[in-house]
Amino acid sequence: MKQQALDYAHEHQAHNLADLVELLKIPCISTDPQHKADIAAGAGWVADYCRRIGLNNVEIMPTPLHPVVYADWMQAESPFTLLIYGHYDVQPVDPIDLWHTPPFEPTVKGDDIFARGASDDKGQFFTVLKAVEAYLQGAGKLPINVKVLIEGEEEIGSPSIQDFLTQHKERFSADAIVICDHPMLAPDVPMMMYAVRGDAHIEVTVRGPAHDLHSGTFGGVVENPFNVLVRMLAQLQDPVTHRILVPGFYDTVRPIAEAEKAMIVGNPFVSDAVLQSATGAVQITGEEGYSTAERMSVRPTLEIHGMPGGFTGNGTKTVIPSIARAKISTRLVPDQNPYHIRELVADYLRKIAPPGVEVSIQFHGASYPVVVDYTLPAYQAANRAYQEVYGREAVMMRGGGSLPIMHYFKTILDVPIVMMGLGLPDDNLHAPNEKFHLPNFYRGIETMIHYFAFLA
Amino acid sequence: MKQQALDYAHEHQAHNLADLVELLKIPCISTDPQHKADIAAGAGWVADYCRRIGLNNVEIMPTPLHPVVYADWMQAESPFTLLIYGHYDVQPVDPIDLWHTPPFEPTVKGDDIFARGASDDKGQFFTVLKAVEAYLQGAGKLPINVKVLIEGEEEIGSPSIQDFLTQHKERFSADAIVICDHPMLAPDVPMMMYAVRGDAHIEVTVRGPAHDLHSGTFGGVVENPFNVLVRMLAQLQDPVTHRILVPGFYDTVRPIAEAEKAMIVGNPFVSDAVLQSATGAVQITGEEGYSTAERMSVRPTLEIHGMPGGFTGNGTKTVIPSIARAKISTRLVPDQNPYHIRELVADYLRKIAPPGVEVSIQFHGASYPVVVDYTLPAYQAANRAYQEVYGREAVMMRGGGSLPIMHYFKTILDVPIVMMGLGLPDDNLHAPNEKFHLPNFYRGIETMIHYFAFLA
Repeated sequence: MKQQALDYAHEHQAHNLADLVELLKIPCISTDPQHKADIAAGAGWVADYCRRIGLNNVEIMPTPLHPVVYADWMQAESPFTLLIYGHYDVQPVDPIDLWHTPPFEPTVKGDDIFARGASDDKGQFFTVLKAVEAYLQGAGKLPINVKVLIEGEEEIGSPSIQDFLTQHKERFSADAIVICDHPMLAPDVPMMMYAVRGDAHIEVTVRGPAHDLHSGTFGGVVENPFNVLVRMLAQLQDPVTHRILVPGFYDTVRPIAEAEKAMIVGNPFVSDAVLQSATGAVQITGEEGYSTAERMSVRPTLEIHGMPGGFTGNGTKTVIPSIARAKISTRLVPDQNPYHIRELVADYLRKIAPPGVEVSIQFHGASYPVVVDYTLPAYQAANRAYQEVYGREAVMMRGGGSLPIMHYFKTILDVPIVMMGLGLPDDNLHAPNEKFHLPNFYRGIETMIHYFAFLA
Repeated sequence: MKQQALDYAHEHQAHNLADLVELLKIPCISTDPQHKADIAAGAGWVADYCRRIGLNNVEIMPTPLHPVVYADWMQAESPFTLLIYGHYDVQPVDPIDLWHTPPFEPTVKGDDIFARGASDDKGQFFTVLKAVEAYLQGAGKLPINVKVLIEGEEEIGSPSIQDFLTQHKERFSADAIVICDHPMLAPDVPMMMYAVRGDAHIEVTVRGPAHDLHSGTFGGVVENPFNVLVRMLAQLQDPVTHRILVPGFYDTVRPIAEAEKAMIVGNPFVSDAVLQSATGAVQITGEEGYSTAERMSVRPTLEIHGMPGGFTGNGTKTVIPSIARAKISTRLVPDQNPYHIRELVADYLRKIAPPGVEVSIQFHGASYPVVVDYTLPAYQAANRAYQEVYGREAVMMRGGGSLPIMHYFKTILDVPIVMMGLGLPDDNLHAPNEKFHLPNFYRGIETMIHYFAFLA
């Protein structure tokens, strides 16, 4: 059965690419209400595809915002059921001027296909569905039962998914969940993530005068909200140790076992030289007392993303702004609770706010850190599949980013989550000229074919 | 002769308003290259007007950027020559949506005329020219000699004026210069400014990574330029005393004589209650050890105007910005040299910059603080003129704002400068719905008629 699927996939590379191109053409930008019809078209295309390849019970399930595509095939001899997760929604395309080819006119150049969503996540989840197709069309059946959950809100933090999973808990019951939505380390070096950091987004607003004032007329008699805000923000992090100074911030950070620490620190693919080249930063630096590999995975961080307000145009404008804002987020590690942490940050900011201004705090979103046991059979089977195709085991790593749905899969469905990345570090995720490496598309399909067989 | 001029002005109120409306229709936005033709039209209109009312030697004098209008009348019996300064250029009109009537369709509502430039400075300098008209047309002559210098670059910092005055020093020689470009304290309370603060504009740029990074992937291994910049900016000013912490910043601040300090502190028109109402600030506050009236006139300040860079849109974006910027300016008092002070600020910022980032400093503009001796006869004559029309002496005040040309008049022409404001505090200068109070237009013309007579 596996060989038939592998043969089918091999013989249908052009067909598989043609399907991917069709999927990539649909501008499913989930954050932009103007793309509502495109989101519907994207969900419709995925549902049609599922029907076409022989999946059953295909359904476009509504949520309060963007729909989820469901499908299944439950006739396997093995009792094992794999839930395939992915998202058909994509990031916005700004700045559009920097794209070399239009983001929704998929363009193959050399080994890469360029389009918004090529890697994140259309190209990646599609490899899993293409493995399903290879089995169903090449062999007439699958070695395991599969369920499909392709959502349309991942790029905006999956706001509907908690209620949706709670409501449809039975339907999505499974023995493992596979998520194909992260990079490999290099075209020949597969990587499996077994953790994500959490995050919490906080916007702090400092209000001074009721309206913008002329800095000549009124300079010296009112607090300038930016002057105040920079002093408050400067108290969030120690300049030398880079420790976050919010009281209680580290209280719930779970220590790392020595064995895991050794694995993290010993990862030969993480080095200051590699990071220097990837980031172009003047210096690789961070929290005192921790290695670079730890700082980007098992330690929390705090970043200022931007400071809206005041005058930001060219040249000068002599204004005392009425309002200064800062957009902040923090990355969190087990067992930090993002809802608790954001309250700690907010309380601290309110406490250090000086008189003469009004400080208000807005929360934007939060997600839990999650660690998965990578010794589970469903993980080890995935690793064997990579080995079969790439000739080497996957490097096991904790991810530095966040994936809100992980926490809900873990707490609502209580199913092991297996993360199998097929992207590359230079895929330009969320940026202009996003691409997907086509050899990874074809080898990814093969990897998934092996994976299904090993799970059986 | 004076009575004939006063009669002429009184009988020609409608005519004077009609002329003002024509002048206000021309969108002389000096900062915007697209308005180059409008600038030329504005200069042309002023020159035509000068010819029409009987001034001689009218000339549109080119500068590297926008032209100056020159005119004179040198046939007075008195040897006294007054140089009339003003500017026909105006600020941009953004945000255009907030205007209740189009900015270049002058609209009279009640006692006010609404238009960009109504108060700053077309309406104000035009009162002085209208007094000239009243004499020349009503009496056939002026009691003093006058020269006219109306420039087109004031709103962009008069970049051409230093070279221009140096080049044409002889032509602009005079016994006093009158500048009509500041507010009164209330419709019945004239004010004369005898000083301006200087300023220096500094933009600091902190560069971290070569491009924006994902804060999940790279959070913890590079310096975030905003995290760094807020810590640097926080070290510019003491949070409690509000003293500026740049070494040497206060070294050249000239102490105020006791008599002047008493006048400043005793000014009944400056109070925390008035400022609270004008600014809507939570609290009137500022540098420790100085009264409110001192802080807004004889003490230097430092303001952050805005912090470009990073993500400033709605919602969240998990980015470590490549670049963070801050637009800063400082208001300066005698004898602070703006070119020296901006070097001090830049040196300090470079010194406190941590490793891991690149800090660069850009200078945007600078102007000198200037104090004029308000006991000079040309000042006292102006005060008498106000008294004649408004029934009370002008309040003598140091201004908090800056006027770069003051320093050049003082150092190049070496002539006493008399500042006679006719605006009002709520004229919405540089803001939507700029207006000029028409009773001040008519009474301002009368005041200038008296002023010319007193100068003779």
